[in-house]
Amino acid sequence: MPHRIYMDYNATTPPEPEVIKAVTEALQEAWGNPSSNYIAGAKAKAIINHSRENVARMVGGKAEDIIFTSGGTEANNLVLHTAVEHFRKNCRAAEQGEAHSNGCTGLPHIIISNVEHDSVRLVAEHLQRDGKADVTSVPVSKTTARVEVEDVIAAVRPNTSIMVRGDREICQRIKSLNKQHERLRILLHTDAAQALGKIRVDACELGVDYLTIVGHKFYAPRIGALYVNGPGTRTPLYPMLFGGGQERNFRPGYTENTPMIAGLGKAAELVTSNLSDYESHMRSTKLYLEERLRAVFKDRIRFNSHYPGSDNLPNTCNVSILGPTLQGWRVLSNCRRLLASVGAACHSGSGNRPSHILLSCGVPSEVAANALRLSVGRGTTKEDVDIVVEDLRETVQLLEEMN
Amino acid sequence: MPHRIYMDYNATTPPEPEVIKAVTEALQEAWGNPSSNYIAGAKAKAIINHSRENVARMVGGKAEDIIFTSGGTEANNLVLHTAVEHFRKNCRAAEQGEAHSNGCTGLPHIIISNVEHDSVRLVAEHLQRDGKADVTSVPVSKTTARVEVEDVIAAVRPNTSIMVRGDREICQRIKSLNKQHERLRILLHTDAAQALGKIRVDACELGVDYLTIVGHKFYAPRIGALYVNGPGTRTPLYPMLFGGGQERNFRPGYTENTPMIAGLGKAAELVTSNLSDYESHMRSTKLYLEERLRAVFKDRIRFNSHYPGSDNLPNTCNVSILGPTLQGWRVLSNCRRLLASVGAACHSGSGNRPSHILLSCGVPSEVAANALRLSVGRGTTKEDVDIVVEDLRETVQLLEEMN
Repeated sequence: MPHRIYMDYNATTPPEPEVIKAVTEALQEAWGNPSSNYIAGAKAKAIINHSRENVARMVGGKAEDIIFTSGGTEANNLVLHTAVEHFRKNCRAAEQGEAHSNGCTGLPHIIISNVEHDSVRLVAEHLQRDGKADVTSVPVSKTTARVEVEDVIAAVRPNTSIMVRGDREICQRIKSLNKQHERLRILLHTDAAQALGKIRVDACELGVDYLTIVGHKFYAPRIGALYVNGPGTRTPLYPMLFGGGQERNFRPGYTENTPMIAGLGKAAELVTSNLSDYESHMRSTKLYLEERLRAVFKDRIRFNSHYPGSDNLPNTCNVSILGPTLQGWRVLSNCRRLLASVGAACHSGSGNRPSHILLSCGVPSEVAANALRLSVGRGTTKEDVDIVVEDLRETVQLLEEMN
Repeated sequence: MPHRIYMDYNATTPPEPEVIKAVTEALQEAWGNPSSNYIAGAKAKAIINHSRENVARMVGGKAEDIIFTSGGTEANNLVLHTAVEHFRKNCRAAEQGEAHSNGCTGLPHIIISNVEHDSVRLVAEHLQRDGKADVTSVPVSKTTARVEVEDVIAAVRPNTSIMVRGDREICQRIKSLNKQHERLRILLHTDAAQALGKIRVDACELGVDYLTIVGHKFYAPRIGALYVNGPGTRTPLYPMLFGGGQERNFRPGYTENTPMIAGLGKAAELVTSNLSDYESHMRSTKLYLEERLRAVFKDRIRFNSHYPGSDNLPNTCNVSILGPTLQGWRVLSNCRRLLASVGAACHSGSGNRPSHILLSCGVPSEVAANALRLSVGRGTTKEDVDIVVEDLRETVQLLEEMN
């Protein structure tokens, strides 16, 4: 079997050797209970503290702003759970005359977009179905592929509790709203799963209250964290789990997962130290990939993430090769070298339908059906690109001859 | 510094070298997304399936009965959440005439004991405080240190939804109740965190619907699982998290934590293969420890877990050395070799108060205050025991001379 070229780094990344080393060493030497009084736990505690600082530094926060979670799904669930609880507690306080009642009628209102990951969309839908929240899904613009500020502002209601796709501009506008009205503050969240390790992310600059961190997207193991701007002080955080007091009770677990936390910390440290190298390498590799694809497929190529004024990810080339027999899944299943996926889904099972995200962004369905998401990584070389483009050329030729 | 002897294996255990190897190899070679269609994910998928079978075998269940979770705290939370949701959905169905209304009035009722781990007790208290459940805490008997069947049966109400400390006898009695009454079935749970890897555990034989599995208590990494007897079919299971469909939607996470699951599976395999060796080694080591303690401290020694007819854990010696200056924390902080803890708490912070569990079991407070929980492991030797007993002898002498 020929050597495969992996270009699905947006789905998951291989842990860096230094990260694996950190995990393995912690398994061997820091297996003690970090909460125990004796020395065996002290090493574990030191590793966890150090990792917390490294993760905080990566997102421009303070160590105390980082809550380790089992992953991004849990982090996103925790944010929406908090928004609902926060609204509920404030309403109760208002009823008892202890707080303003503005906005505190009915259900908490959640604003999402129509291109959310399942770990946001399905939570919001569940809360709505359960009668615990109202949800507005703001469609992204078909010309910019982004949520437009004015659309978000138009969706805000007196009972809006959270907005989950905050970019800098949206955060600024919502924050002025928060100041103007005597209302329950609208909380701001962003899921930085795909951004971290690829572009600079600074939670303070963005102005978000919550930011989701997913290790395995930046060469760390499968663990996550939630950045919270002053958890329990400046920003509410209501736990979903109850137990032994870990993570200051915000996210208890019998005993902290020291080895995975060690790996996450090491990976965050690598991002902080090397981000500009990673970013420029990935960007130039992607540009070379686009150039080669254009040279080979000429006017049959469509880049699905080229929008005016949009900063798309430096490593991602979402591309369609036009032709009636060149659906993304058919191309990928016939490639001998390329490993990639057809869209932004983290899981299979959505079958061979075109990505709803591409459709939502205004990509015509016959183009979206052919989409390939090629995402390059830290180690992807120009030679890899040449092999992949040649593989695609042969595959396309084969599929067209078969017809 | 002299070499320390660890006797706190009930708090946490060092991952076995074979377990560390499984984790490391999966980090290196099975980092692909198990849900991806291409070959890179296939290896991860195979590892997860294999681990699921191994974990199931350890508890006498089927592979499909195992739901991987981030740990025992999450598993216990998930069980109580399910009990509440199950009651709620059935009441709703009853209101709409689709089900019997028996018992479906008011709130779901949860029966726990007064010696629960925080990840059960605090969840129950939270549900009660939030107006989501009624909770009865059945005290353990002060003569047997166990929950008595008759006390549990007396606590059952028409709206009882779950009983969380099911031993074989309790499960049998509750099951006959479930058959006799036209009522919503009472669900049965047991937390096997401390039993697994020490004594044989068979979920079917016990007759429980749910059983909590905690990796780091049996030389696996910090990950857990919940055994559910036919999740979603024979036994209800309502997810707390929503996301990308992993674990058949019962416990989604962006992407499964393959390396930790690999480690859990390997540790479970070791337990299944070697349990009788582990158990007899630990039992004889503990018996030797008790013998040596008796020989050195004579009538000043009290064993706090010796109850008539009780099968206490083969590795655990909860012991008090009587004397006004020999509080457990003082003894431990003056020991030069022994690492142990003063009680069943998985976390510190409960300070120097005697264990509420010992007090609940009828141990007098001046004895409970002196308690040491010495728990031996697979590798604890008689030489280790000799060193620890000598260390204790010297420490006691020192503390009494200081006074």
